[in-house]
Amino acid sequence: MNYPKEFEDLINCFRRFPGVGYKSAERMAYQFLEMKEEYRDDFVKCIEGISSLKKCKACHNLSSNDLCEICSDFERDKSIICVVQSIKDVFAIEKSNSYKGLYHVLDGVISVKSGKLPEDLNIDSLMDRLEGVKEIIIATNPNLDGETTALFIAKLLEDKNIKVTRLAYGLPMGGNLEYSDDVTITKSFENRKTF
Amino acid sequence: MNYPKEFEDLINCFRRFPGVGYKSAERMAYQFLEMKEEYRDDFVKCIEGISSLKKCKACHNLSSNDLCEICSDFERDKSIICVVQSIKDVFAIEKSNSYKGLYHVLDGVISVKSGKLPEDLNIDSLMDRLEGVKEIIIATNPNLDGETTALFIAKLLEDKNIKVTRLAYGLPMGGNLEYSDDVTITKSFENRKTF
Repeated sequence: MNYPKEFEDLINCFRRFPGVGYKSAERMAYQFLEMKEEYRDDFVKCIEGISSLKKCKACHNLSSNDLCEICSDFERDKSIICVVQSIKDVFAIEKSNSYKGLYHVLDGVISVKSGKLPEDLNIDSLMDRLEGVKEIIIATNPNLDGETTALFIAKLLEDKNIKVTRLAYGLPMGGNLEYSDDVTITKSFENRKTF
Repeated sequence: MNYPKEFEDLINCFRRFPGVGYKSAERMAYQFLEMKEEYRDDFVKCIEGISSLKKCKACHNLSSNDLCEICSDFERDKSIICVVQSIKDVFAIEKSNSYKGLYHVLDGVISVKSGKLPEDLNIDSLMDRLEGVKEIIIATNPNLDGETTALFIAKLLEDKNIKVTRLAYGLPMGGNLEYSDDVTITKSFENRKTF
């Protein structure tokens, strides 16, 4: 006998997550089975809840409203924009408490491997919000695609009379900003250098 | 800035799973965010789907109907019942293809530590289905609580004129039936011994 179809379906749902193999997915499905009905409903509500999340109209960060918490915060320094690959990076930087400017989420990097072109990224919308901006910090990941994208954007900004900086190489090469510790992130903010 | 509440809620949902820490839960929540709407709906359907699953009226195994696939299968040997702790064990044994009789799921074991008493287990319903049964194989886990439960049930069956056997100690002591490999499970079926 195999698992009832409903159960097998749920296992397969969990298997689609990164790093979850069959045995882990099976354990999670069992956990669900043993869960109280109301908690299962809770979970469903949470999943449906994130459908109401939007991308911030200015910086493309995750947001409950049209403008994200950062863009609508009067205390943030609106003359600096930190350009990142993904929303995960926004939260990694926020956690380090080393930066008080705005962000701009590219939603990826220029990549030959995955066929991503500059026009697939949020670069146009970055160019549209340069008024009053004195510095742009490019915080793409320190690997090939990240560097390519950083250079591409720096080139675009060359004649705009804006200081363009790159996070310092306190970040280990080939690494991921998302998994860096707070001290490393802070160091890389302090030592950022001009292109 | 912290994550929007909807997102933080979902992370907390995932954290309730065994072996999932904050970082893993965060990754899973991001995965959800990047998922297509229809797949998210799919997931919700799967979770709601398992609410329709029942416990088999005869053996307490997981089932889509009143009687599970095994209890309603005419080809299974109805003169042998294998007593297991949980439904996970039913599927572990089924996968090993070494057994063709029926099952009885106790839903736990007698345990001083977690305060489980014999009346909390499905023992009465086991006693009610002994008609025509020639052998009962007790397949509780080979650890203290499992042994205690096995002895307790063996004692109850003493005067019923039924052969009572225990899975052979091919299973490593202190281990878990659920995680044993098929060969070990098959061996323990072959070498089962009379009390």
